[in-house]
Amino acid sequence: MAKMKPIGIIRSPFKELTGMPIQPAGAAGVKGTAEVFEEYRAGLKDLDGFSHIILLYRFHRSRGFDLRVVPFMDSVPRGLFATRAPKRPNAIGLSVVRLDKIEGGVLHIRNVDILDGSPLLDIKPYVPEFDAPVEVRTGWLESAKKTVSNRKSDDRFKR
Amino acid sequence: MAKMKPIGIIRSPFKELTGMPIQPAGAAGVKGTAEVFEEYRAGLKDLDGFSHIILLYRFHRSRGFDLRVVPFMDSVPRGLFATRAPKRPNAIGLSVVRLDKIEGGVLHIRNVDILDGSPLLDIKPYVPEFDAPVEVRTGWLESAKKTVSNRKSDDRFKR
Repeated sequence: MAKMKPIGIIRSPFKELTGMPIQPAGAAGVKGTAEVFEEYRAGLKDLDGFSHIILLYRFHRSRGFDLRVVPFMDSVPRGLFATRAPKRPNAIGLSVVRLDKIEGGVLHIRNVDILDGSPLLDIKPYVPEFDAPVEVRTGWLESAKKTVSNRKSDDRFKR
Repeated sequence: MAKMKPIGIIRSPFKELTGMPIQPAGAAGVKGTAEVFEEYRAGLKDLDGFSHIILLYRFHRSRGFDLRVVPFMDSVPRGLFATRAPKRPNAIGLSVVRLDKIEGGVLHIRNVDILDGSPLLDIKPYVPEFDAPVEVRTGWLESAKKTVSNRKSDDRFKR
């Protein structure tokens, strides 16, 4: 199976897993950058027209996985794929962030919930018509999500 | 760098790249399945509470990439990362689909814009608070997106 190859690196104020916001909603206003390697920079043309982008990156500090996890916003074990926990069979993270500007190969981004040093795998433009369905149900998160923006991660996903 | 390992396989009516819808908006109502391999099925618990899920999968028919591409909905070369073209340095596809039901390890999904046989890499619950920002700009797509749901792919991304 194909190997993942970083196209850049993500910089953020979050140097450790503990204390990280759980998702962009809790990372509101937090600034960071995505530094795209020289050889891929020509692919950034036209990206500055988009206010939001989808970043795919490696959860590079995750090792292994459990199929049942107790999420940050809950106290009951849930199926791994019903959570956004970083320990996954393919440890790929996904965050929708705001794109403030691009300088050279550096994307200045906001609402960053990503660990510093995460290897960047892909950048996709965020397009509501593609990415934002309507009439959405969110299962076990329905009640938990009301408080999610105030929650921080603890150390339960550390090695 | 870590290898991607399939956790299942996606089944859809789209056996060839030509004629595929470009994105879920154009795939409205199209049904398919995501068959999760036995060893990962315990991770599906609680997922049925979510109406929509994010699928990550390999663009398994893509080889190589160009940093400038002419997207399906346009006639001007754009930067690769400002498009959703399948030929990318890390050929990982992302689709938000509707989850109708789960039977055993088979997810019945709708609004499928994915090629039949695509290796499934990850399943994440779709959560608007995390994944749907507001006040979005979509650059070159602003004008093109009005017609995107009617467009089909041609053969420009075939090998």
